[in-house]
Amino acid sequence: MPVHSFVAFDKNTPLTLESGRTLSPITVCYETFGKLNADKSNAVLVCHALTGDSHVATTSDKPGWWDSVIGVDKPINTDDYFVICSNVLGSCYGTTGPSSINPVTHSFYGLSFPLVTISDMVTVQEKLINHLEISKLHAVMGASMGAFQVLEWAIAYPEKMNKAIVVATGPKLTTQSLAFNMIGREAIMSDPNWESGSYSELPRRGLSLARMLGHVTYRSNVSLDSKFGRKLQEKKDYGYDFSTDFEIESYLKYQGDKFCQRFDANTYLYLARAMSYFDLAKKYGSLNDAFQHVVAQLLFVSFSSDWLYPPASSREMVKSLMSLRKDVTYIDIDSPNGHDSFLMSNAEFETIISNFIRSPRL
Amino acid sequence: MPVHSFVAFDKNTPLTLESGRTLSPITVCYETFGKLNADKSNAVLVCHALTGDSHVATTSDKPGWWDSVIGVDKPINTDDYFVICSNVLGSCYGTTGPSSINPVTHSFYGLSFPLVTISDMVTVQEKLINHLEISKLHAVMGASMGAFQVLEWAIAYPEKMNKAIVVATGPKLTTQSLAFNMIGREAIMSDPNWESGSYSELPRRGLSLARMLGHVTYRSNVSLDSKFGRKLQEKKDYGYDFSTDFEIESYLKYQGDKFCQRFDANTYLYLARAMSYFDLAKKYGSLNDAFQHVVAQLLFVSFSSDWLYPPASSREMVKSLMSLRKDVTYIDIDSPNGHDSFLMSNAEFETIISNFIRSPRL
Repeated sequence: MPVHSFVAFDKNTPLTLESGRTLSPITVCYETFGKLNADKSNAVLVCHALTGDSHVATTSDKPGWWDSVIGVDKPINTDDYFVICSNVLGSCYGTTGPSSINPVTHSFYGLSFPLVTISDMVTVQEKLINHLEISKLHAVMGASMGAFQVLEWAIAYPEKMNKAIVVATGPKLTTQSLAFNMIGREAIMSDPNWESGSYSELPRRGLSLARMLGHVTYRSNVSLDSKFGRKLQEKKDYGYDFSTDFEIESYLKYQGDKFCQRFDANTYLYLARAMSYFDLAKKYGSLNDAFQHVVAQLLFVSFSSDWLYPPASSREMVKSLMSLRKDVTYIDIDSPNGHDSFLMSNAEFETIISNFIRSPRL
Repeated sequence: MPVHSFVAFDKNTPLTLESGRTLSPITVCYETFGKLNADKSNAVLVCHALTGDSHVATTSDKPGWWDSVIGVDKPINTDDYFVICSNVLGSCYGTTGPSSINPVTHSFYGLSFPLVTISDMVTVQEKLINHLEISKLHAVMGASMGAFQVLEWAIAYPEKMNKAIVVATGPKLTTQSLAFNMIGREAIMSDPNWESGSYSELPRRGLSLARMLGHVTYRSNVSLDSKFGRKLQEKKDYGYDFSTDFEIESYLKYQGDKFCQRFDANTYLYLARAMSYFDLAKKYGSLNDAFQHVVAQLLFVSFSSDWLYPPASSREMVKSLMSLRKDVTYIDIDSPNGHDSFLMSNAEFETIISNFIRSPRL
């Protein structure tokens, strides 16, 4: 599956970001799956989460991160739909971000890269959709930070989509999630190798800590308990030292190390910061103000054991949309797997997505 | 209030630790509040938690950490009870630990200090009680890691106590808590200043990260939400950078910095490790095996919003004790304040403690 690139903004027409700063040029790196039909009515834009990328569906050479939902004969069947996924603005996977080369200085942007917001990411995605000459998306969908983008899409470009699928998210981070978000960033910035963002060597210790912490928040205690419990790692008794004793310890270290092989530390800071700034009520005055012009048919999905984006956060938005008499459906799916439930195979979730994407508007 | 010191084990009678290693000499630093009565029947031993110390009740010069529960006219009235609190083995507050001077090498123990367990802490406390010539404690009480010690007391020295007050704890850490425990330790050990435990300068960044993470786990989302929400710190809008924007960020940094002024990094590692190793069912074969010889009158208290030591963990122990027909009472107190509820003023909690400590055995 080829990876496509696209220049969204050249040097002569810089993008003014939500912060007021400008950025140009901007390259957007994206992938597509399936075929756009003749009347261009089958396009589905998928927005990825914090550490995700454009490779949403499995190809012969590489598994996709949303393989349970997107692909041939999957709920979003790529025999029927033309799926587009772009790496977000700020990403380290080809779209312009802090790890990109600044064409003026010929070195990495690092902290000279301007802060980007969820809105900025969506602005760039909309340019991509225009570039593809698609005037109306069949659907925009995403989970977690991806769903932040879906919400901004439905608000900022109400006429450009039929359906919105909003999974495992909220109108803002909870205060607890805001706190975890900050600790992850602090872990990176506390690593001396970070060097105020100008590192030549990746600040692995900090980035690994951020990932380990993130990982625990993406799972529920029940799921960690059933997978690991207090099983010891290749030993019969405690080592009575500070090396790895428990499987959960070994697993988290492995997750931290693996993450450092595929992600960039400044990128993590930028995207995490963008998440912390996302707050629909702050930006638009209130949730009702935010949602007043939405016309898409909306599906909200939460997962019962997701404590990072608790079901109550979804309900808060659904209540607002219902009060505005919008076309909204909501389900809280019973799952033990915490926030990461959206990445795992779940028959109920898959059936709901499959039905919603194909349902005619009532 | 004077601070008392006591050498529990001299060089000729080293303590054999649960790990099999030996340690001597051991100094125990403890405080007492109130007066021991003539028949020595009014002694209450309080066991402190991970970052606590012996200063359990407020004195003219210093507030006590369990001021809501212990003091003159408090639930544990120091006009009636003789309260003893010792700094645990491994502590940095005067009892022998990794920050103590090794009398053989004349330098800090650091990582040459042997791992100590909750049982080892209790063994040393029992020596202190013998030294005070108290044959039977009226009660042993504690919360969190302190309650781990209470459980070991009730199991290891069943005849030496009338009552046990076991607050906000479990028979082991949950897998999620085990994961957070490990990340806190990794944060310290990832700090280059830690220098494999031989630091001359405190690894402040790592210790601060561990504390910030700990702090979030000690509170509930509801309590963080009502105290901080998304309030900005002395600014009207986002800074669009990585400095402190939210009050919760500023507060956590403050907590991290403050902690570094009063705690030692290796000590944190040792005590956190001791907590991770605590597992009654593993040590004794099963919970029922652990509790079979308990004779104390037991009170278990959990707090509804405590997700680090969830009420289910208390219930698991209470069920075992009930099946063994032990004298056990349990209450789950409705509180929004998470694990830290035990440190906060709560009329229901205080009434229950007050009644239980004074109640005759049925």
